[in-house]
Amino acid sequence: MPGLTIGDTLPNLEVDTTCGKFMLHDFVGQEWVILFSHPGDFTPVCTTELAKVAAYTERFEERGVKLLGLSCDDIQSHNNWIKDIESYSGGCKVKFPIIADPKREIIKELNMVDPDEKDATGKQVPSRALHVVSGDKKIKLSIQYPATIGRNVDEILRAVDALQKVANHKVATPVNWKPGEAVVIHPGVSNNQAKEMFPQGYSTAELPSGNDYLRFTNV
Amino acid sequence: MPGLTIGDTLPNLEVDTTCGKFMLHDFVGQEWVILFSHPGDFTPVCTTELAKVAAYTERFEERGVKLLGLSCDDIQSHNNWIKDIESYSGGCKVKFPIIADPKREIIKELNMVDPDEKDATGKQVPSRALHVVSGDKKIKLSIQYPATIGRNVDEILRAVDALQKVANHKVATPVNWKPGEAVVIHPGVSNNQAKEMFPQGYSTAELPSGNDYLRFTNV
Repeated sequence: MPGLTIGDTLPNLEVDTTCGKFMLHDFVGQEWVILFSHPGDFTPVCTTELAKVAAYTERFEERGVKLLGLSCDDIQSHNNWIKDIESYSGGCKVKFPIIADPKREIIKELNMVDPDEKDATGKQVPSRALHVVSGDKKIKLSIQYPATIGRNVDEILRAVDALQKVANHKVATPVNWKPGEAVVIHPGVSNNQAKEMFPQGYSTAELPSGNDYLRFTNV
Repeated sequence: MPGLTIGDTLPNLEVDTTCGKFMLHDFVGQEWVILFSHPGDFTPVCTTELAKVAAYTERFEERGVKLLGLSCDDIQSHNNWIKDIESYSGGCKVKFPIIADPKREIIKELNMVDPDEKDATGKQVPSRALHVVSGDKKIKLSIQYPATIGRNVDEILRAVDALQKVANHKVATPVNWKPGEAVVIHPGVSNNQAKEMFPQGYSTAELPSGNDYLRFTNV
């Protein structure tokens, strides 16, 4: 399997989509992008996923995040399928492009191949892969779910919020963090630096080791 | 970066852990395993993650899921760090083994290297990688979060519930599915087969395409 994973640069492929042809890096520009793949048009889990993403479009837009889907079927199929998605979502529009990859070339480059599933003609199909890409064109976070397991759009939104929080401050987000909750101060920040950087103050967990590495603040 | 991803077989490495040495395949046996890595001992996000996993130990045990952590520091360091974790978690015990990888050999084999972070001596450190492995020793689901973003243990538990549900029935789980909610019937199951397989009945979403691929049932 190809090794595209976090830290790697998104290959600058030309893609054909429901919103025209473009180069992946041009699409990313200086923004955050969620690139996510689906096993196939007119299939059940995919339809529920796309409908949920369509319903969440405003939340992604508010965060400056662009969406880019991928399914192997052709553009005509995508456009017909979108009618089903928009109907199932109660009228939420699919405003983002969906890449077509009938030759299965792009999914191999992007580490989006499902190892266990094939379509009716025996061709490979995509897994439920998802890469969060930032303006430097690098993959910051990546998940690979099998064809049978729908993703959790709330967790994707939470992860984007966390990525954007840590991109703007010298902090990290603890387990299960949600927006509004305390974050932790990066271990590379000394206590003296922390006092300057976080005038709002911070609290340090008391631990048996006596070390003061677990410091919480609000930013 | 190494290409270990879903569908690949977990390499059968010998690992040294806080619970002794063993081969990875022996540890997996015929069960489900969550293998997850951490950037380092005595660091803030990792401590919150391990404490949460320790607090969830019973929930994983109920599901027949074994846990296996990994951090690059040595066993002595792990054992000292576990005291901090158990204190921070309010007394929940770390009952599962944590692999030591001071030479950074294992994280490379397991696609668990963080591309952007180094420790104080300039050595590579693990990302927040997590692989769900089943009894066939294959990776079924995989996530890669950067060092700065804590994972969501509730989403991991949800994904495990979904994997176990689809392993036992010819169904798949829709977007954001939670236990107790309806699942979708696999597209490979005909309506006639579905009537036999799901005597409790199923409902079919009406879609503009007129196709009947989106069928919900409860199992």
